[in-house]
Amino acid sequence: MRRHSLAGEPCPVARSLDVIGEWWTMVLVRDAFRGARRFEDFRAVGISDNILSARLKRLVEEGIFEKRLYQEHPQRNEYLLTEKGRDLLTVVAALGTWGRKWTTGPDATGGMTHEECGRNLTLRGWCEECGRPVEQHEVRVPEVIRIEVPVTR
Amino acid sequence: MRRHSLAGEPCPVARSLDVIGEWWTMVLVRDAFRGARRFEDFRAVGISDNILSARLKRLVEEGIFEKRLYQEHPQRNEYLLTEKGRDLLTVVAALGTWGRKWTTGPDATGGMTHEECGRNLTLRGWCEECGRPVEQHEVRVPEVIRIEVPVTR
Repeated sequence: MRRHSLAGEPCPVARSLDVIGEWWTMVLVRDAFRGARRFEDFRAVGISDNILSARLKRLVEEGIFEKRLYQEHPQRNEYLLTEKGRDLLTVVAALGTWGRKWTTGPDATGGMTHEECGRNLTLRGWCEECGRPVEQHEVRVPEVIRIEVPVTR
Repeated sequence: MRRHSLAGEPCPVARSLDVIGEWWTMVLVRDAFRGARRFEDFRAVGISDNILSARLKRLVEEGIFEKRLYQEHPQRNEYLLTEKGRDLLTVVAALGTWGRKWTTGPDATGGMTHEECGRNLTLRGWCEECGRPVEQHEVRVPEVIRIEVPVTR
């Protein structure tokens, strides 16, 4: 299933993808934000039971979910987002924003809103130094690739 | 390779993952933001040539990259981010932020900065209505899961 680990890459983007880069993983995290806790809740998305079990196990091992017993006989667990898991809200929000703009289809949830006023939220780059949001054209991404090599292929 | 399409899901998060949910896809997008344009540039990350070809083809089909001829003999193409592709900057930024906090390892790039002042940028939820950034605890995620079903397994 896993082809090549990105866990050792010198880049936090790559290392994040190593943990959460599989489709189902992020779909399960999304569902957890929407209130899913039990195996049956997570099943609702149409994942097969064996993949679901494997993904939940991985998410617990990675410390994104914590497993908590909610019934003794028979033994049943629920899965709760940890702080590390809750910090993925920005990733889910970024995916939702992009998908709302660039994919076609309904939106069953309507997206995240501001608790206080009910308005839909957007994600923006923020500069602590200047104390203001920054636009995309003001963002500098360090250039590390662009290696000039002779074309020999 | 692809097990179950999320393209028809009534959720923009799921549909986004259908397009960009594979590890290598987002790693290639990250590299494009950092200046990678040619096959050789993208190879630098250690991807095998056949997977790289397939991913670049998919990214062009999805309209995230556009292919442009830069050499006639022999014919060579470069891959440039489209507007749809550049809009993934927020997703890359969200992954970078999370990875910087929750994974261990070096950061070869140092992350995105504000062009004007050079300070590292953060991503924040933003409310247009209130004209201010909002904290995570102020974000409301619509609850659509939490289906109460009898445990029969």
